[in-house]
Amino acid sequence: MNIQRNRRSGRRGSGSEAPSRNVSYGRLTNPYPPQSLYSDDQIERLHQAALEVLADPGIRVLLPRAREAYRKAGCIVDDDSMMVRIGADVVAAAIESAPDSIELQASSPEKTIHLGGKSLNFMPVGGPPGFSDLQRGKQTGTRAAAQDFLRLCQHFDVMHVAGPCVELQDLALNQRHLWSKFDHLTLTNKPVFTWARGTPQTMDGFEMIRIVRQVSHEEFRQKQHTYTVINTNSPLQLDIPMLNGLMDFAEYNQVVIITPFTLAGAMAPVTIAGALVLQHAEFLAALTINQLVRPGAPVVYGAFTSNVDMKSGSPAFGTPEYVKASWGAGQLARKLKLPWRSSAPTASNAPDAQGAYETQLSLWGAIQGGANLVAHTAGWLEGGLTASYEKFILDIEVAQMIAEICQPSWFDEAELAISAIREVGPGGHFFGCQHTMERYATAFYKPLVSDWSNFGQWTENGSLTATQRANKLWKQIVADFEPPRQDPAIREELKAYVERRIAEGGALPES
Amino acid sequence: MNIQRNRRSGRRGSGSEAPSRNVSYGRLTNPYPPQSLYSDDQIERLHQAALEVLADPGIRVLLPRAREAYRKAGCIVDDDSMMVRIGADVVAAAIESAPDSIELQASSPEKTIHLGGKSLNFMPVGGPPGFSDLQRGKQTGTRAAAQDFLRLCQHFDVMHVAGPCVELQDLALNQRHLWSKFDHLTLTNKPVFTWARGTPQTMDGFEMIRIVRQVSHEEFRQKQHTYTVINTNSPLQLDIPMLNGLMDFAEYNQVVIITPFTLAGAMAPVTIAGALVLQHAEFLAALTINQLVRPGAPVVYGAFTSNVDMKSGSPAFGTPEYVKASWGAGQLARKLKLPWRSSAPTASNAPDAQGAYETQLSLWGAIQGGANLVAHTAGWLEGGLTASYEKFILDIEVAQMIAEICQPSWFDEAELAISAIREVGPGGHFFGCQHTMERYATAFYKPLVSDWSNFGQWTENGSLTATQRANKLWKQIVADFEPPRQDPAIREELKAYVERRIAEGGALPES
Repeated sequence: MNIQRNRRSGRRGSGSEAPSRNVSYGRLTNPYPPQSLYSDDQIERLHQAALEVLADPGIRVLLPRAREAYRKAGCIVDDDSMMVRIGADVVAAAIESAPDSIELQASSPEKTIHLGGKSLNFMPVGGPPGFSDLQRGKQTGTRAAAQDFLRLCQHFDVMHVAGPCVELQDLALNQRHLWSKFDHLTLTNKPVFTWARGTPQTMDGFEMIRIVRQVSHEEFRQKQHTYTVINTNSPLQLDIPMLNGLMDFAEYNQVVIITPFTLAGAMAPVTIAGALVLQHAEFLAALTINQLVRPGAPVVYGAFTSNVDMKSGSPAFGTPEYVKASWGAGQLARKLKLPWRSSAPTASNAPDAQGAYETQLSLWGAIQGGANLVAHTAGWLEGGLTASYEKFILDIEVAQMIAEICQPSWFDEAELAISAIREVGPGGHFFGCQHTMERYATAFYKPLVSDWSNFGQWTENGSLTATQRANKLWKQIVADFEPPRQDPAIREELKAYVERRIAEGGALPES
Repeated sequence: MNIQRNRRSGRRGSGSEAPSRNVSYGRLTNPYPPQSLYSDDQIERLHQAALEVLADPGIRVLLPRAREAYRKAGCIVDDDSMMVRIGADVVAAAIESAPDSIELQASSPEKTIHLGGKSLNFMPVGGPPGFSDLQRGKQTGTRAAAQDFLRLCQHFDVMHVAGPCVELQDLALNQRHLWSKFDHLTLTNKPVFTWARGTPQTMDGFEMIRIVRQVSHEEFRQKQHTYTVINTNSPLQLDIPMLNGLMDFAEYNQVVIITPFTLAGAMAPVTIAGALVLQHAEFLAALTINQLVRPGAPVVYGAFTSNVDMKSGSPAFGTPEYVKASWGAGQLARKLKLPWRSSAPTASNAPDAQGAYETQLSLWGAIQGGANLVAHTAGWLEGGLTASYEKFILDIEVAQMIAEICQPSWFDEAELAISAIREVGPGGHFFGCQHTMERYATAFYKPLVSDWSNFGQWTENGSLTATQRANKLWKQIVADFEPPRQDPAIREELKAYVERRIAEGGALPES
């Protein structure tokens, strides 16, 4: 918020020189009270219902070493069915030990982010197998496509972390994680993502971050240097890679965003309250194994409860049910005193009006729900199967506007402008008055892709839709991109690591 | 909310028959606490600042009979400058006498709306000189175009009133108000709008409503049968037609939505707080003359504070500043204990992603601001210069989703679905379970124009954007339209009134 304060202080000057607008969305706080869906009593009942589910039937845990850890903590484990029944006391200890806030380190220290309290952070789309733009249409993901998304992540300060925007399908499975991390660490200086697709890949990721941040193994574990997302296999199942992820990240003290993907009517009950019970139960089970490995390991409460189209079974996003579930999820996260992550998805197949209105509906679920981290803020399309460059730009515009809404609302005698109103008088105009001259250059949000020209001017400029303008914009940003400064020796060391590991056979994802 | 309750009660049945979803958005309540921009102290200071402006310099009042009324109430009036300085006591009396809630009558009694408290109502776009659709492009307004918008207003229950969606520019100025009201009263049975463009036109409107509602002059004045919008001439000026409107509507006890159009940086100070001071002062001046004519006349606090693009001077809508101003305006309306109206505008020239995201940003300003009436909810384009049919449909989708978010959130043991979670078990699916079967048909919002099909299906269906789908939809609705039932004798009487008045010369708008 420092830069914001500087910006505004420029407006206090009595001189008529117009300070240029120098806003920063790099550190955001959401100053508004969160919206609640349920009463406190109802949230308590919902929490208890999740505990009842964990006690009976419990959760299926596919990884033997994880079952062993649950058993040691006093859980009732049946190795034949792989079911683990978790008592309320074990869950309570896990809730108690998990920290209420996290500092997630960036390669550039000023880009380290805070998760917890009233902090607000935006994350790009993560995970699509494909990408699209207006010229090429829908394509299978490539490393080059992923690099362009990383360039966009780095370019916009409202995008607080780098993420796995599209899958590097042109690379062999044993190399993808290496080149993806290489690109994260050379094209951005923001907090970086590490897939939890098995211990060997995870360890490669940690090593590469150590190289860039120049920290020892011990120093690496002292701070949070990377984050991952663990989706449970709803309903009530934790598979081997996700359990290894939960345990590895805990052991290394790195951030796990535990996000059950509870689609009401499909993998979760058809009611919002029921889907939240399942989400909460699965979260608590995953939290427990994570905290059993290392009490105090950093965890984010992730929520991704939406509903399906009951006609086709297709997942729907940006629905009224999605918004309500987000507001309820925020209450559950606050009950546990944990940082929490929401999302801004859409089911739209095109970066069109539906894409815009569904994404923004989801986004208000997150913002009014008090989320600390909004995943899939920019670029998500087609229910997460495609990352769209145009959508990325359109979504950044909305994220920036939300960031502006979260800026402090100044209020003092000068802002009230009584003298200016008297000076201008009835039927006058404020364009030229001193009060305006002192402030006009910094007064308002400047749009990225929105076109505020009149119809005639807009027509002369080619009658471009916002999506067409976004197409020009992202290509220009990528063309002009300069990677952040980095010691060439570090880059060489990183590249050598990747090449050595590939020569050794890389690492396949676990299944 | 009755039908909503019925809908849900259908979900309680233990049988496996799937009740069909029968939702109603005709009466909405916003159950969520409104967002605040300022502290109560700051709102009090803002109110006092507006009073300071009304005391000095006051407001310019162009209509002699209005100045006379202010003078009689103890205001300081200068007839040369036409300035009226209004004391805090006079304003306080007006605030005191204005009612805190309003029942606005519809021709069909179940469509009467409530304004005040936690009620939420949607109004269509009002006022554009032109219209557009994907086939015809941008066109000058016609009666036929306005009729199609009225058909759309009637069709969707989430559209709570009929409005002047587009100007009838193919009719002579002295007839427009007559045919417009004829269409309002024959194509819809919802609350109808009356332009305040001079006393003769207003009286024609009142007479025509009396004919349809079959009420005497005295009965007409006992209830609220129509509404108008009065925009002030910011800064600090009230012109002759708007003053006649404020006084005529008060005399006849009809609803006035007083809405200063205070664009920060142009007709209002460049700061949000300053623009709100001017908005509030102008509102209070207009409220005062209205209440002096008839204490207790129904008034709605209208707010339309936005900002301009400081480069071009173009008005901007759906901006962060717009949202903040709406939240502040809601606080001011609640301080006065008056129903309040906000809006959902955009500056976009096309019904595209910008149109969608700006409109929704504005809309959340209204919804989270606790507005009772959201003007320009559907169809607004190009800063209000065009009414778009496609945009109307896209906006209805979002209004319906907001209406769903405002439905009660059920919470009981059955909703928690613990038994269903146990029944389905780990790795199972909820599609076929009893808990889902009982509820699936009514569980979720069904979209109007959103397409949730997968990419392959969407491509097979022609890869249509939401805007293209909206184009098909509005034309189908208009083609299938059946006007509400009406006694043919009433329609004949109404038509005879219009024809007689036209034969008499109609009535020109006042300027």
